[in-house]
Amino acid sequence: MNRKELINQINAKRSFLSIGLDSDIKKIPTHLLEMEDPVFEFNKQIIDATKDLCVAYKLNIAFYESIGLSGWHSLKKTLDYIPEGFFVIADAKRGDIGNTSKMYAKAFFEALNFSAVTVTPYMGSDSVKPFLSFDNKWVIILALTSNKGALDFQNIESKHGKPLFKQVIETSKEWGTNNDIMYVVGATRAEQLLEIRKIIPNHFLLVPGVGAQGGSIKDVSKYGMNSDCGLLVNSSRSIIYAGSEIDFANRARIEAEKLQKEMAIALSEI
Amino acid sequence: MNRKELINQINAKRSFLSIGLDSDIKKIPTHLLEMEDPVFEFNKQIIDATKDLCVAYKLNIAFYESIGLSGWHSLKKTLDYIPEGFFVIADAKRGDIGNTSKMYAKAFFEALNFSAVTVTPYMGSDSVKPFLSFDNKWVIILALTSNKGALDFQNIESKHGKPLFKQVIETSKEWGTNNDIMYVVGATRAEQLLEIRKIIPNHFLLVPGVGAQGGSIKDVSKYGMNSDCGLLVNSSRSIIYAGSEIDFANRARIEAEKLQKEMAIALSEI
Repeated sequence: MNRKELINQINAKRSFLSIGLDSDIKKIPTHLLEMEDPVFEFNKQIIDATKDLCVAYKLNIAFYESIGLSGWHSLKKTLDYIPEGFFVIADAKRGDIGNTSKMYAKAFFEALNFSAVTVTPYMGSDSVKPFLSFDNKWVIILALTSNKGALDFQNIESKHGKPLFKQVIETSKEWGTNNDIMYVVGATRAEQLLEIRKIIPNHFLLVPGVGAQGGSIKDVSKYGMNSDCGLLVNSSRSIIYAGSEIDFANRARIEAEKLQKEMAIALSEI
Repeated sequence: MNRKELINQINAKRSFLSIGLDSDIKKIPTHLLEMEDPVFEFNKQIIDATKDLCVAYKLNIAFYESIGLSGWHSLKKTLDYIPEGFFVIADAKRGDIGNTSKMYAKAFFEALNFSAVTVTPYMGSDSVKPFLSFDNKWVIILALTSNKGALDFQNIESKHGKPLFKQVIETSKEWGTNNDIMYVVGATRAEQLLEIRKIIPNHFLLVPGVGAQGGSIKDVSKYGMNSDCGLLVNSSRSIIYAGSEIDFANRARIEAEKLQKEMAIALSEI
């Protein structure tokens, strides 16, 4: 999916919501456990209930990998089930030496047909660039994450007075364009979006941490939105685990709709 | 495997060699492609030919993941085939928010029974700590990698004059002990091992970059060895792809033996 197609989807749906399918077999409604593939069945019902409200689905690869081969089957079936026109993110946080990153890129972009992969910047340019050689595919680089430990290293100030996450953005934005690179910036640090927009006014940002982790659509939009929207806000647990009974998918829809309505308001103010 | 068992293996075999099974279906000898599981057959023959010369095998997860489900079958079969008494590393470079890292830890330590996983430190403490709650399992944290792009960020000096990789080591060593944390330090930057040994005299270091990437056993031992050895030196391509014909496993053995002999000399000088 290219940038224009993504922006069109956002405008058509009045939504920049990404729903995180962090589907954990220990947390899904117990009535699904009788099904042949409970994780896929869970995802299928969540997708059916939310697909008019979001523009992206983000699959957290760990949750599939951790249950072994059957997890990869569920992942593949979920990918095949997501309709055309969605921006589908492999939240994999990969990054390795060049020939290895190339293998990961092939895994996610060719074997699995994701639209984007999250990558970690620690190993530098040759760990990220192999992901940038695929048409209409995206790399989403971790800049400032939403977890507590983020501050251990991402905020370390260089001798030039620049925190590491800003240096990561400044250096890495030269490796591609705003048509193939996005950045992860946690909603829990929304005010820092202002600083980040000075460096990358036009790039899309993937913003996790709304909902269970405490960030708000209003703050993220206020500090991070640009004239193309430029945001994908992800929510996982607060949507997919909103209910744990037979009506879980409808509960998920209700939560997704709350966020979509806030997003529609924010978009009307561009 | 605990620290004492690892040291015993090193002393018994006079080797601190780790062989990287970066087994790429496009690079393995073509006569294997007729077999039911070419990648497993390749690994099996490499293991048979080298198991008396090394103490560790490192499986680069990307190479298995990139070929889809069949790759995970080959990975699992390879793991089952490696005899008891080896330190088996999942070179996965994972790291995510706490609940996700926990899923990865379960994947590699429970579903797959690896001895150790490589992790990337960018997201900080809560991305690494979930890997530290398994008995006799290890986390190997990226500090200073052997690739060219390593210098993009790992060498950035903080306002206190400290490069990022040193700050990573100083901060993260408090998260565990030298019984459950190791660090990746590339052989291509061997002289920096001296600096690193001032911070962590007793930790084991996993040293990639010998062979195809240009580092030497002699330099690594000179600057990095401690009284327990404290080193695992990994070589992948220069061993496993030493030959491409029917005798590839024997060619691999010859290359592994060269390194093992250099290691025996280095160990005799402790």
